Amino acid sequence: MTAPAPDAPLFHGVIPPVLSPFLDDSPRIDTETLARHADRLIRADVDALFVLGSSAETAFLSRENRRIVIETVREAAAGRVPITAGVIDMSTPLVLDHVRDALDAGAQGLVATAPFYVRTHPAEIAEHFRRIHRAAPELSLFAYNIPVSVHTVLDPAMLIELAREGTLRGIKDSGGNDGYLRTLIEMRAEAGLRPEEFSILTGSETTVDFAYLAGADGVVPGLGNVDPLSYVELHRLLREGRWAEGAELQRRINQLFRIVTVGSPARMGGSSAGLGSFKEALHHLGVFPSALMAPPHVALNEEEKAAIAEIVDAAQVREVPEVSEP
Amino acid sequence: MTAPAPDAPLFHGVIPPVLSPFLDDSPRIDTETLARHADRLIRADVDALFVLGSSAETAFLSRENRRIVIETVREAAAGRVPITAGVIDMSTPLVLDHVRDALDAGAQGLVATAPFYVRTHPAEIAEHFRRIHRAAPELSLFAYNIPVSVHTVLDPAMLIELAREGTLRGIKDSGGNDGYLRTLIEMRAEAGLRPEEFSILTGSETTVDFAYLAGADGVVPGLGNVDPLSYVELHRLLREGRWAEGAELQRRINQLFRIVTVGSPARMGGSSAGLGSFKEALHHLGVFPSALMAPPHVALNEEEKAAIAEIVDAAQVREVPEVSEP
Amino acid sequence: MTAPAPDAPLFHGVIPPVLSPFLDDSPRIDTETLARHADRLIRADVDALFVLGSSAETAFLSRENRRIVIETVREAAAGRVPITAGVIDMSTPLVLDHVRDALDAGAQGLVATAPFYVRTHPAEIAEHFRRIHRAAPELSLFAYNIPVSVHTVLDPAMLIELAREGTLRGIKDSGGNDGYLRTLIEMRAEAGLRPEEFSILTGSETTVDFAYLAGADGVVPGLGNVDPLSYVELHRLLREGRWAEGAELQRRINQLFRIVTVGSPARMGGSSAGLGSFKEALHHLGVFPSALMAPPHVALNEEEKAAIAEIVDAAQVREVPEVSEP
Amino acid sequence: MTAPAPDAPLFHGVIPPVLSPFLDDSPRIDTETLARHADRLIRADVDALFVLGSSAETAFLSRENRRIVIETVREAAAGRVPITAGVIDMSTPLVLDHVRDALDAGAQGLVATAPFYVRTHPAEIAEHFRRIHRAAPELSLFAYNIPVSVHTVLDPAMLIELAREGTLRGIKDSGGNDGYLRTLIEMRAEAGLRPEEFSILTGSETTVDFAYLAGADGVVPGLGNVDPLSYVELHRLLREGRWAEGAELQRRINQLFRIVTVGSPARMGGSSAGLGSFKEALHHLGVFPSALMAPPHVALNEEEKAAIAEIVDAAQVREVPEVSEP
Repeated sequence: MTAPAPDAPLFHGVIPPVLSPFLDDSPRIDTETLARHADRLIRADVDALFVLGSSAETAFLSRENRRIVIETVREAAAGRVPITAGVIDMSTPLVLDHVRDALDAGAQGLVATAPFYVRTHPAEIAEHFRRIHRAAPELSLFAYNIPVSVHTVLDPAMLIELAREGTLRGIKDSGGNDGYLRTLIEMRAEAGLRPEEFSILTGSETTVDFAYLAGADGVVPGLGNVDPLSYVELHRLLREGRWAEGAELQRRINQLFRIVTVGSPARMGGSSAGLGSFKEALHHLGVFPSALMAPPHVALNEEEKAAIAEIVDAAQVREVPEVSEP
Repeated sequence: MTAPAPDAPLFHGVIPPVLSPFLDDSPRIDTETLARHADRLIRADVDALFVLGSSAETAFLSRENRRIVIETVREAAAGRVPITAGVIDMSTPLVLDHVRDALDAGAQGLVATAPFYVRTHPAEIAEHFRRIHRAAPELSLFAYNIPVSVHTVLDPAMLIELAREGTLRGIKDSGGNDGYLRTLIEMRAEAGLRPEEFSILTGSETTVDFAYLAGADGVVPGLGNVDPLSYVELHRLLREGRWAEGAELQRRINQLFRIVTVGSPARMGGSSAGLGSFKEALHHLGVFPSALMAPPHVALNEEEKAAIAEIVDAAQVREVPEVSEP
Repeated sequence: MTAPAPDAPLFHGVIPPVLSPFLDDSPRIDTETLARHADRLIRADVDALFVLGSSAETAFLSRENRRIVIETVREAAAGRVPITAGVIDMSTPLVLDHVRDALDAGAQGLVATAPFYVRTHPAEIAEHFRRIHRAAPELSLFAYNIPVSVHTVLDPAMLIELAREGTLRGIKDSGGNDGYLRTLIEMRAEAGLRPEEFSILTGSETTVDFAYLAGADGVVPGLGNVDPLSYVELHRLLREGRWAEGAELQRRINQLFRIVTVGSPARMGGSSAGLGSFKEALHHLGVFPSALMAPPHVALNEEEKAAIAEIVDAAQVREVPEVSEP
Repeated sequence: MTAPAPDAPLFHGVIPPVLSPFLDDSPRIDTETLARHADRLIRADVDALFVLGSSAETAFLSRENRRIVIETVREAAAGRVPITAGVIDMSTPLVLDHVRDALDAGAQGLVATAPFYVRTHPAEIAEHFRRIHRAAPELSLFAYNIPVSVHTVLDPAMLIELAREGTLRGIKDSGGNDGYLRTLIEMRAEAGLRPEEFSILTGSETTVDFAYLAGADGVVPGLGNVDPLSYVELHRLLREGRWAEGAELQRRINQLFRIVTVGSPARMGGSSAGLGSFKEALHHLGVFPSALMAPPHVALNEEEKAAIAEIVDAAQVREVPEVSEP
């Protein structure tokens, strides 16, 4: 088994999955907006950036577009925060191509799902992660549990085994089942692994307080693209054990999260409604020049846009200061 | 709406989804074996070839590998049968890249699934097919219903609408539900569409007799890679209305299909067991020099290989004559 | 292991799952209509009657109501055809109560699903069938595969094992997957079991021709309540090997089956739309005085009733002669 | 719409779902043990008792057995705590029979699932709850969200509507998705409903701290049968806002919960492993004379029983004092 990479950067804290702004629907990456958006998140004091996640519309991006995204964000970050990159694709060979690209483009971490489209056995999933790690042992590899897209739930015992052998440095869990996250945390403790050895991140932006109460190490909040300051504050409150205040802030954040329910399910899928609302909110806040999504996403209509603007205004999203908070 | 392409080649009859032989597990395409295998299928008198389907391990192939497959088979075919190509990928932009590649490489048809990984609405799926057709209106576009991989069942009413407007020229149904196929055939008749306008193919190789009895136009049998002559004979019997003889032949074919159940579910997924058995059978028959699959597929062990050889021998698969049957 | 009961009546051919007409929504069984309806089916020359299946609204019937149904139909049948009774309930103890009731009420066969609501292992499902058989070894026990209700698919290997040991005398498959049925038929042959020892019935009324072509022994058609003569004729054609004529009749029958799609999915579930259409069709034909269903089923509205009447009229359902056909 | 019943007892706090001890596997209720067990729970200072839940093996109990359970526990409680009763069955008419029985037997609350086995529309599910409430308006009706058994997730908007109109007094959520519970709590606040009007209980015994942090009103812990004192203490800590201490206690409780994973999934289903471990733990603690379950449950073997005993011993489950804690 390959040795772990003890100096690979750790990923914990608030790590927004950076949205990808587009210039047209081919789609062409709006690198200028992307750089400004990444800078805004860093000034809000997030701990790291996760590019090419599901909410980055990575499933719509060519290899070239993916490289452009990593390079743009790495340059904008200029070393202020580490960057981890999703390598989402159907199978080991295709993921390995993305791994090489991410390495070339300067990412410091990788986030990989189980194979999809093809039907795989747990042993095949473990082999998949091992081959990815061997191809880039200097990068921190995180497993990405996202059953709504991959239609597989990653087995906790397998994850702990892969952590012990040094293949995995962490997991991003977007399974929506907080009991699963807690079980992982309890199994990590039993296995004698420390958080610095295996980082457990929640992708459920509406239950961050739960995850931290159980002992999670960070959060990857899609909504953090819209309101990064609130998630940074939430992280601080929860780290300080101010649980009731944290839960109260979480409740206020969840009011803003309602934007994802505005797009009509009679006309569009969950991805159009969710991503569309994030992009529209950023458009309304003046961060994105447009809310363009890749096809075949359906755009929100004027009425829906107005409803989103209303929710965003009611939430009084704080502006990120021009210089990073101390 | 774009006009139909009345002179686009029709796809019907026996259309094997051509397996992709590999030289190593990067994977590198074994073009020599692929060409010989395609020639063998054509000499067996199949009606067309479907490259880059699910059983071609397309989910494991880079754009370059996919182009190599199409070009190799097109050259081997030398115009004797038309070739249709799968353009399997997660989203419209990525599929459109494959469409351009397939057009360049000389395919005459396209087979596309609904988007996957992302959650889509039926209206988004329809838009997906329309954009594909507009990008290559001269190619016959088939929808590919394969819920086990895509986790979406294509709506029959949507398919018929897309057929009427000229977007789709057919469907390959691998849903495993013969009632679905029959409903489609009945809806086609009601819509006043002829088989030449919308071709309905079954991907269920063990119930071809059912599909033809209902009025299907052809079959895309993975097992046809191993025993093409039996499927060609089955097609002929069923076309001539010799149903009982067809059912009897189908029963014998299904004995051979048992090879897909040999690989142990305790060690491997359905894809390793299924594809692995097809490749091993071809290896045993001397058609493929190896049964190599792309990672993270698990290889069959010696005991399993022996069990497959035994089933293949018992089935007495007929050798394809050196010159095409009349 | 208990010995098989070689003289238990065989169930094969056309076996309609008899609908339960109601006088009110408590529900109270309309025994007079039920008896007349059973007689009508027998005069149409069906081979047996299946009472208390899913389409009998058995999930809405108390033990007393269930007994009334069996007794009413048994008396109406007066020995002309054998009667088999569903014993649908969540667990072994509750099913055993129904088994005793069915025995008392004079049923000659039993049809049982796997346990539901509770999560069970295949070994527990096998034990479930064994206990049922031991409680009434003189009755022919059929397994009922209906995943849409029970959320379990019965394992074919387990069924064959239960058949060999004499626990099961047959299966009614309502799984909607004709490949499953064919696999069972092929496994029966390999196990050296004859159709008289293990009877395989399809519950898919729109693909009877497929099932018979594969070697099935009979059909349990819900739509047979409405148009029994067509199913009896279909059975005869298929038994005589007149496959093309059979498929043509099946297509005409499937036109009538469209009634199940009339009820709006915006207002009601599949059960209300399906059962409601059968009961409304029988009401339109003058067989049932009303289309009353048990709560919380939603009734069809006037527009929907008219649409059903139109489909029924177009199908020209033949009237059952007053004396049984020769 | 029927008026709410403002004086119906409120159900909140720790409400164990009381297990049903058996004398044999018919099953016959061991009323003596049941009464002693109920008394033990009440002396541990729980807030109410929930009889005939899923973990009471209600799916295995006849109407008579169900009445015996309610009466036994009601007599044992002697008015010290209120008692709510599950009315689990497939459909409205059958549930209404159980409602009448529960009323007769002296229950003060009802807990009902959506219909199952039959496929129902949300409007039908709402009608189901309304009919139940109308049949016993003096009882507090709780909805029971348990998708693993019922295969339906109750729609939060429907639940809030039923709460506003006075049909529902609360929900027991065993969906395992804490985001769902939080959404319900947030929607309750927005609807202007107070906890006394609509009580939200979690059935997830390993994430009680999460649920309370979000604002839940109580917990229905199956494991509370084994260790009621820990849940009563957990409730107190969380009510006092001692979140970190609560989470720490929850972690210790979850060590005990590991007993549910001891039963081998190769031999038994989740119900046998889970319920079996609860009953075996109570046997080991001397509370139950046996761990007998209803058929077709599989019993734990000697090795598994030893493993459970070890976990129980390690957890140092505190003995419940002979007189109720102050």
